[in-house]
Amino acid sequence: MAKKALEIQMSKELELTEIIQNTIKGKIKPIGSLGKLETLAQQIASVQVTSSNNNKLQIHNPHLLIFAGDHGIAKHNVSIAPSDVTTLMVNCFLTGKAAINSFIKDSDWQLNVVDCGIQTELPQHKHLINARLGNVCGDISEESALTLAQLAEAKSNAEPLISDLDTNLIGMGEMGIGNTSPASALFAKLFNLDVNDVVGVGTGINDKQLMHKQALIAKAIARVETQEPCEILRQLGSFEIATMTFAMLAAFKHNKLIIVDGFIVTASAAIALAIEPKLKSHLVFAHVSNEAAHKRILEKLNVSPLLDLSLRLGEGTGAALSLPLIQAAINFYNHMASFEDLGISL
Amino acid sequence: MAKKALEIQMSKELELTEIIQNTIKGKIKPIGSLGKLETLAQQIASVQVTSSNNNKLQIHNPHLLIFAGDHGIAKHNVSIAPSDVTTLMVNCFLTGKAAINSFIKDSDWQLNVVDCGIQTELPQHKHLINARLGNVCGDISEESALTLAQLAEAKSNAEPLISDLDTNLIGMGEMGIGNTSPASALFAKLFNLDVNDVVGVGTGINDKQLMHKQALIAKAIARVETQEPCEILRQLGSFEIATMTFAMLAAFKHNKLIIVDGFIVTASAAIALAIEPKLKSHLVFAHVSNEAAHKRILEKLNVSPLLDLSLRLGEGTGAALSLPLIQAAINFYNHMASFEDLGISL
Repeated sequence: MAKKALEIQMSKELELTEIIQNTIKGKIKPIGSLGKLETLAQQIASVQVTSSNNNKLQIHNPHLLIFAGDHGIAKHNVSIAPSDVTTLMVNCFLTGKAAINSFIKDSDWQLNVVDCGIQTELPQHKHLINARLGNVCGDISEESALTLAQLAEAKSNAEPLISDLDTNLIGMGEMGIGNTSPASALFAKLFNLDVNDVVGVGTGINDKQLMHKQALIAKAIARVETQEPCEILRQLGSFEIATMTFAMLAAFKHNKLIIVDGFIVTASAAIALAIEPKLKSHLVFAHVSNEAAHKRILEKLNVSPLLDLSLRLGEGTGAALSLPLIQAAINFYNHMASFEDLGISL
Repeated sequence: MAKKALEIQMSKELELTEIIQNTIKGKIKPIGSLGKLETLAQQIASVQVTSSNNNKLQIHNPHLLIFAGDHGIAKHNVSIAPSDVTTLMVNCFLTGKAAINSFIKDSDWQLNVVDCGIQTELPQHKHLINARLGNVCGDISEESALTLAQLAEAKSNAEPLISDLDTNLIGMGEMGIGNTSPASALFAKLFNLDVNDVVGVGTGINDKQLMHKQALIAKAIARVETQEPCEILRQLGSFEIATMTFAMLAAFKHNKLIIVDGFIVTASAAIALAIEPKLKSHLVFAHVSNEAAHKRILEKLNVSPLLDLSLRLGEGTGAALSLPLIQAAINFYNHMASFEDLGISL
C-alpha cells in the first residue's frame, strides 16, 4: 500500500477506535464496571463498526459448526472410548440427542456437522456437510496425520464451507475420539513445551493410559523437524483440526467473528494464528476447559476466555454457552443509555 | 418429628438423590464432563424433584428483583457518586435505560424494583414495589442502620413480596450508593475478618477515599458486640440488605430458587445463611465480582460461582447473565438422551 493510503487507513482506524471507546465509556455506569463484557463489546465493535454512521453491533443468524474426524492414534487406546463413538455421537448431533442439542434448544444457533473424515460414513442429512478427507487420519505417533493432497483438500473444502453460510458469527466445536492427542502434540511443537505439560486425561483416561499417551505424543513430536505452521499441522494435526484451521482463516477473510470452543479448537486457533496473527481480532475464546493444559495455552496466546465451567466434553458446548454473553455485550453497546442521553455531563 | 417418620423421610430423600444422580450419570457423555453444570443440575433437581414421576426441571416465569436503598454512610464520600444517583438509577431501571435492562432484553426475566428506602421517593410505577423503611438508613459508622421497628418491618415486607410472585426462581440484585460499606462491615463481623481484607474500592474510589472508608467501617464494627445474625444485620446492614435477607428466607420457605448477584447480595446471603443454614440448597451464586473481597467470602461460604467476568456494577447484572447457564443445566437434565435411550449398556 502506498504511504499516503496507509496513513489514511490508519487515521480512519484510530477514529473508529475512539468512537468505540467513547461509546462504551459514555454509558451510564462506572467506567470498566462491566469488566470482560466491555472488552468483548470493544472487540466485536472493532470487527463490525465501519463508520460513525454504523455504530451498532449485531449477530446475524449464528452458526455452530462441529468438525468431526477419526484418528489413527486412537487404536492405541489413548481415549476412554473406541473410534466408533465418533460416528455414534455425530448421529446424536443430527438427531438432537446430545448435550450440544440440549444447550442450543430454544436458541438462535443453527447447527451443522462437518464430516472431515469419520470412520463410518453416514447417510446424507440436511445438517451434515461432507468434507471428508478419508476414513481416518494417519497415526501421528508413526506418520503424518495428513498427506500433502489431503492438506490442500482441507483448505479448499474450508473456503466454500464458510462463504456459503449466511452469518457473521461462527461457533466452532469438534468431535473425534482421540483428538486431544493431536491437539497436545500441536501445542507442544508450536510452543516448545514439554509433553508432560500439554498431555492430559482428555475425557477421563487412567494413569497407565496417560503415560502411554504421553509416550506416543513424545514420539510424534520427535519425528517432526519443521517450524512451518502448515507443515506442523499436516504432520501432527488431524482431519478435523486441519479443516477447522482453514475454516477460521476463511471466516477471518469474510470478516466473521469466530467463537473458539475448548482445547482442540484452541489447537486450530493456535495454528491459524501462527499462519495469520491478525486473525486474533476475530477470535472470541469461549471457555477454559478442564483439560489441564488449556489454561496454560490460553495464557500463551494472551487471551482471556469468557467462561470457566470445568467442561471437558467438546461438541461446541462451551461455544454455545458463551453466545448469551456475546449478546449481552452487544445489547449494552447498542441499547444502554449514555450520560449524554440523560443530559448529564461528566 | 417421630423417629419412624424421620426415617421414612430420610429414606425418601436418599432415593430421590439416587434418582437425580443416576439421571445425570446416565446421559451420553463422559461422567462429570459438563463440570459445574452437572453440580448445578443436581442442585436444581434436589429442590424441584419430589418423586420419580416428576423427574423434570423447569424455570417458571423468572423474576429479577432489584432491592434499592440509600445509606447514611454515603455522606462521608465513600463512593464515586452522591446518594442522588440511587434514585437516578432506579428511574433508569424503570424506564429501561440501564445495563440490566439491556441484559434482560429478549429474555424471560420479569424485572421489578423494590424501593426499600431511597432518598427521593418516586411516583408509582407498575414495576416499582413500595417497601420503604425510611428515606435513608442510619450511618453505620455512628449508629445502627435500622431501628428494631424497621427490622421488623423489613421482615414483614419481605414475605408478601415473595409469596405474591408467580415464579419458582428469583434473581436478586441491588442498587444503593454506598452499599459496599455495610456489606463489608457485615462480612468483617460475621467472619471475624480484618477490615482491610473486606473493604474494597466499590465502583472505583481513590486510595484516600478507601482509607477513609476502611476507618469508618472499623469504627462501625468496633461499636457492635452482638454475635446474633439478625442483630448484626440491624446494626451494620441497610434497608435493602435487610429486606433482601428476609426475602431470601421467604423464598426458601416457598421453595423458590434464589440467584445471588454480587458482593452486596452475598452479604444478605451470608446473614440469611447464619439464620438458616438449610437455605444453602436454594442459593445459586451467579458470579464472583471484581470487588476484591468477594472471592474470599465465596470461599468462606464454600460456594462456587458460575461466572467470573470482573463485573462490579450490581443491578442484578451478574444474576441476569447466569440465567442461560441455569437453563442449559435444566435442558441437558431434561432433554439429553441417556445411554439407556440409545440401547447402550455401561
